[in-house]
Amino acid sequence: MEEIKVGLIGWGTVGDSVAGLLTRQAELIFQKTGVRVRLAKLADVDLEKPREHPMDPGILVQDYREILTDESIRIVVELVGGTTVARTILLEAMEKGKHVVTANKALLAEKGPEIFEMARRKEVSIGFEASVCGGIPLLHSIRRGLVGNRIHSVKGIVNGTTNFILSKMTQESWGYEDALREAQARGFAEMEPSLDVEGWDACHKLVLLVLLAFRRSVSMDSVPREGITEITPQDVSYAAELGYVVKLLAEAKQGEHGIEMGVFPTLVPNHHPLAAVDGAYNAVEVVGDWVGTTLFYGLGAGGAATSSAIVSDIVSVAARLSGKGGDDLSAPTWNEQEPALCPPNLCTSRFYLRFTGQDKPGVLGLLATFLGEEGISIGSVIQKEGGDVVPVVIMTHPAPAGSILKALRRIEALDVVKGKTAVLRALGD
Amino acid sequence: MEEIKVGLIGWGTVGDSVAGLLTRQAELIFQKTGVRVRLAKLADVDLEKPREHPMDPGILVQDYREILTDESIRIVVELVGGTTVARTILLEAMEKGKHVVTANKALLAEKGPEIFEMARRKEVSIGFEASVCGGIPLLHSIRRGLVGNRIHSVKGIVNGTTNFILSKMTQESWGYEDALREAQARGFAEMEPSLDVEGWDACHKLVLLVLLAFRRSVSMDSVPREGITEITPQDVSYAAELGYVVKLLAEAKQGEHGIEMGVFPTLVPNHHPLAAVDGAYNAVEVVGDWVGTTLFYGLGAGGAATSSAIVSDIVSVAARLSGKGGDDLSAPTWNEQEPALCPPNLCTSRFYLRFTGQDKPGVLGLLATFLGEEGISIGSVIQKEGGDVVPVVIMTHPAPAGSILKALRRIEALDVVKGKTAVLRALGD
Repeated sequence: MEEIKVGLIGWGTVGDSVAGLLTRQAELIFQKTGVRVRLAKLADVDLEKPREHPMDPGILVQDYREILTDESIRIVVELVGGTTVARTILLEAMEKGKHVVTANKALLAEKGPEIFEMARRKEVSIGFEASVCGGIPLLHSIRRGLVGNRIHSVKGIVNGTTNFILSKMTQESWGYEDALREAQARGFAEMEPSLDVEGWDACHKLVLLVLLAFRRSVSMDSVPREGITEITPQDVSYAAELGYVVKLLAEAKQGEHGIEMGVFPTLVPNHHPLAAVDGAYNAVEVVGDWVGTTLFYGLGAGGAATSSAIVSDIVSVAARLSGKGGDDLSAPTWNEQEPALCPPNLCTSRFYLRFTGQDKPGVLGLLATFLGEEGISIGSVIQKEGGDVVPVVIMTHPAPAGSILKALRRIEALDVVKGKTAVLRALGD
Repeated sequence: MEEIKVGLIGWGTVGDSVAGLLTRQAELIFQKTGVRVRLAKLADVDLEKPREHPMDPGILVQDYREILTDESIRIVVELVGGTTVARTILLEAMEKGKHVVTANKALLAEKGPEIFEMARRKEVSIGFEASVCGGIPLLHSIRRGLVGNRIHSVKGIVNGTTNFILSKMTQESWGYEDALREAQARGFAEMEPSLDVEGWDACHKLVLLVLLAFRRSVSMDSVPREGITEITPQDVSYAAELGYVVKLLAEAKQGEHGIEMGVFPTLVPNHHPLAAVDGAYNAVEVVGDWVGTTLFYGLGAGGAATSSAIVSDIVSVAARLSGKGGDDLSAPTWNEQEPALCPPNLCTSRFYLRFTGQDKPGVLGLLATFLGEEGISIGSVIQKEGGDVVPVVIMTHPAPAGSILKALRRIEALDVVKGKTAVLRALGD
């Protein structure tokens, strides 16, 4: 019985879980697949830090090059993160003919073409299921399970940190800062949280989803992106009154003028399955022309869940190497130009607009007129009695983002309108 | 470029969609995978009936044997249904070395070992993704995507017909008979609906889920099963009052005494993701020891959705035959004895019990006493003022089914208790 040797680089939270899973479930995996996988070397600069799953000291090395130069190791798992050393590791491993598995969404989103080209040129497998939505078998399902479909849209909650913060703001009526501090205290958010709260992480994942769903490579800076730092309890509460919850959505859909995509805080109707996705959970809805609407749900982060996806990739490659089946993890293919991307100004959505207006007769009429002149029609309005200045909340019907911007520029120039308008997207027609 | 020829047997609703998808999306599938799949022959006794996707008359045959004897056909898709001719087709096709794809849950649940043995002996692929939950890439996700996990439980809504009926009963307060008639009028239920409403279809699917999740073969008659024909508007309404919706759940979980499984109408808490699965949709929750809780959602039936899963199986096999990757669709393996099955009497659940008692002092005390003597503790009670006889609804904490039966036998012998008790399972601890 051939044993497939795996080298793991990066012994952080996820690496710890992968090492634990591979060791503890080796017999189960063998029973299920007939494949023997062995963690042969584990590299990290810090080998002393206590881990949940202590490893045989004989497999520990400080220098990852010991893994890359070990000819008996067929599969390299990169869990270093970042886009510098990780890039070197993946490229060198593949150059040497090794198969690779990674959870590195930042690297694949920013340098995907280079990495995937190398995999194709060297004819090696590249597993990256864990890079989007942790343990959920989402990427393989989109690529293989829905292969017969033209994908209409993918949209979902792909960042657990922001979802935890927004869930707290919704359920406990907390402000953003308090919810962020709670997330940090629980280890769900970094002390420097911008990667999550500014939407960069969701954007990385959206780039990968677009690659698989539309076979289109897009650069990070072509994706419109807004984080959740400007969300106020007031907007969360108006959303609730209107029958919505605020979620950070990553979305890409085939529209009239090309793929409309973006990462935006979005009002999701209460009855929509994504509205019920709380805390650290992720979920992505995928709509195809034959399959209709599907949805995939599970833990989007954390060592244990993420390691489930990484190990499934490892086992697939190992099974192929052992001549025991195994799924196809060859590099994805893509186009640079097709399908076209919709110019952000033409991307259409419903919008939630919260104006702050003087409590004078005719203000609502002015807002409605200026919106109407840009072809924006109004779905619902909330205006309550108040002091000198009162909030006016308007939900529009679907309108191009450019028209909204034009209308806002004129509206915000009015004397009776004070300060900046809060602008959020909303799901629905 | 090698072209892989496919023969399709059975030109009903699903066959019509598969033929349409293969024809219309051939170019898309080629772009995605580099694989050319061609529908070479299509067999049905009735070739005259109008179809949504008319086919080139040159590929139509009345006798399926023309497909089995055609040596150029490498993949046979069986969409005949039933357990007689379909069995012959699959066994003969595999005997001739052809790969097979089927959506036939009844055949695989009842004669799975024979069919899968043949696939293994002849070393051919057998795709059956479409047999459970239509277009949702569920089976492959359980088998491959979650391969590193010991599965704790699978539970879900796997029959769209009963879910449609129960959704109507819940949302429109209809009786069972009216909801059934509506389902029949809309084509969601057969005129002879027992396969669906008695839970047989869900039971077929549960047998396949247990095979993949626990690698345990079980016979249909070892699965406790109840349909939805006895569900009353009264119970739906009490469930709502208690914060639940009634769903037909197929469930298998690893318990203390072995796998606890069954198909039962079950009260699902409103906040549980399965509670929001309405109408013709299916969803299955899968819990693994590393991945945690995952959920897969989509259309569980209908030609278009089902054909998405069938075509993904066809493309996987064709890719392997073309040397272009392709997922592993080798026959699953299983044990006959392991893990143990929990004796039905020891299977544990919360229970919803609706008694009809005389409106006399002390009746509730008697019920509580008799339940308590069987070790059953009570979670909540609804008793309202009424006429001579009043319903008493009791939600228990988790208790073995055998203890519930014993207590009911004693309770129903009481003079103050009239008629049979309504007994439903409830999710939750």
